Amino acid sequence: MRNLKLTLAYDGAAYAGWQVQAGHRTLQGALEASLAKVTGQPTRVAASGRTDAGVHALAQVVNFRTTSEMPCAVMQRALNAELPRDMVVREICPAPLRFHARRDAVRKRYRYVIYDGPLAHIFSRQYAWLHPGTLDLPAMQRTAAVLVGKHDFASFQSSGSRRQTTVRTVYELDLQRDLSEPNRLTLEIEADGFLYNMVRTIVGTVALVGRHHRQEDHLAKVLAAKNRQAAGPNAPPHGLFLVRVEYGGCDQVAEATTPLAVES
Amino acid sequence: MRNLKLTLAYDGAAYAGWQVQAGHRTLQGALEASLAKVTGQPTRVAASGRTDAGVHALAQVVNFRTTSEMPCAVMQRALNAELPRDMVVREICPAPLRFHARRDAVRKRYRYVIYDGPLAHIFSRQYAWLHPGTLDLPAMQRTAAVLVGKHDFASFQSSGSRRQTTVRTVYELDLQRDLSEPNRLTLEIEADGFLYNMVRTIVGTVALVGRHHRQEDHLAKVLAAKNRQAAGPNAPPHGLFLVRVEYGGCDQVAEATTPLAVES
Repeated sequence: MRNLKLTLAYDGAAYAGWQVQAGHRTLQGALEASLAKVTGQPTRVAASGRTDAGVHALAQVVNFRTTSEMPCAVMQRALNAELPRDMVVREICPAPLRFHARRDAVRKRYRYVIYDGPLAHIFSRQYAWLHPGTLDLPAMQRTAAVLVGKHDFASFQSSGSRRQTTVRTVYELDLQRDLSEPNRLTLEIEADGFLYNMVRTIVGTVALVGRHHRQEDHLAKVLAAKNRQAAGPNAPPHGLFLVRVEYGGCDQVAEATTPLAVES
Repeated sequence: MRNLKLTLAYDGAAYAGWQVQAGHRTLQGALEASLAKVTGQPTRVAASGRTDAGVHALAQVVNFRTTSEMPCAVMQRALNAELPRDMVVREICPAPLRFHARRDAVRKRYRYVIYDGPLAHIFSRQYAWLHPGTLDLPAMQRTAAVLVGKHDFASFQSSGSRRQTTVRTVYELDLQRDLSEPNRLTLEIEADGFLYNMVRTIVGTVALVGRHHRQEDHLAKVLAAKNRQAAGPNAPPHGLFLVRVEYGGCDQVAEATTPLAVES
């Protein structure tokens, strides 16, 4: 039995989200169906986290156990031949048997993309929030800065989640306009973990300040309230990308004990 | 009766091309249906040229006659509220009654986008040719340079067209790699007119040199042959964008005679 770590990019536009649901086309379902074809075994995968309908990933991480002895590089090519054209396996490598893509994640990074201004950016409509009015970026940068650090993010969590604690540490929050494409804004955020809809709630609340519907002290007030009612509406899902998941080394097989490591 | 010039951007991915065809979803059909709703009149439009299924436009130009007296800016907003989300009217302005978007075009510019290399750029799959092998850009630049100038482009015309002459003048042909995204290649080409499938045939033939299947003198030989069989296969439609159409001033209403000009 091997435990394999698989890194996957996907365009979520055509899917009802990550998690398998009867009667819906899901990313997990498509990956598991392709894995079953390639390995000849029914296979369940565990992801670093679910993504909602419309959300994308540059590098989602999953792990799965298999008795298949197919070399990782061969399995990657075979999966990419099977998968729909909007999903691609970027890497497969052997992991310790105890490795779990969700429980062992120590950091995650998300990107949220907005186009602002009057011009409709039709080619980005499934990959960004097309915000019709111009946003005040410096005001957004100033209001969002308060989120960096260790805080109780209860105000930024949609109901329906069952996390034990709503305290998270945001290591970095970076909001920029693209130099070559000035209507393109990106918010990149890295934390030790995210609550349900946390990034979309942050973006929706920061955007209220960006369009001057709220003062620049708004994010500090929302954070202090520890109440989802204090925050703004969620930004739409299709601007959100899971960019990276980090494991602090626990995803790696020690060289001496695993000849499988050469397969990737 | 007014003759209006309308500039339109569209994502061609979901359409069977520009021209109205019974039983198919076409860009012309979608535009004419929205115009009929907004003006209350059945309206036929004439475009600068048809685009094939999957081909995109940043600024297609059409003209149409209407007795509607709706100000151009109001009509633009109403159309953009009616049109599907993958089409957007960028401008409407009054034109002389004799102006015709196809017959009066004096220059056109197209862009063709390629991603090369092993990484699958899934978010660009409907907006670029994903070329699995790396392309030799300098070789492509050298072989393509011979196309600039006035030539008989008969080798680069798909059958089924009825043009009287296959002589065209290419004013500019520019092939570059993107500085910030090195797997992204763009070919920009500007000419006094294009034969049917001319850009896609040029790109498909230049790519044969880029992957070293042909020598660098290949484009000169194909041009001299004046025979479509000498050229390579057409590059796929979804990498192609109509960027600009120029009219040398004959699309403009003289200021003194047309109070309508202020509407746009």
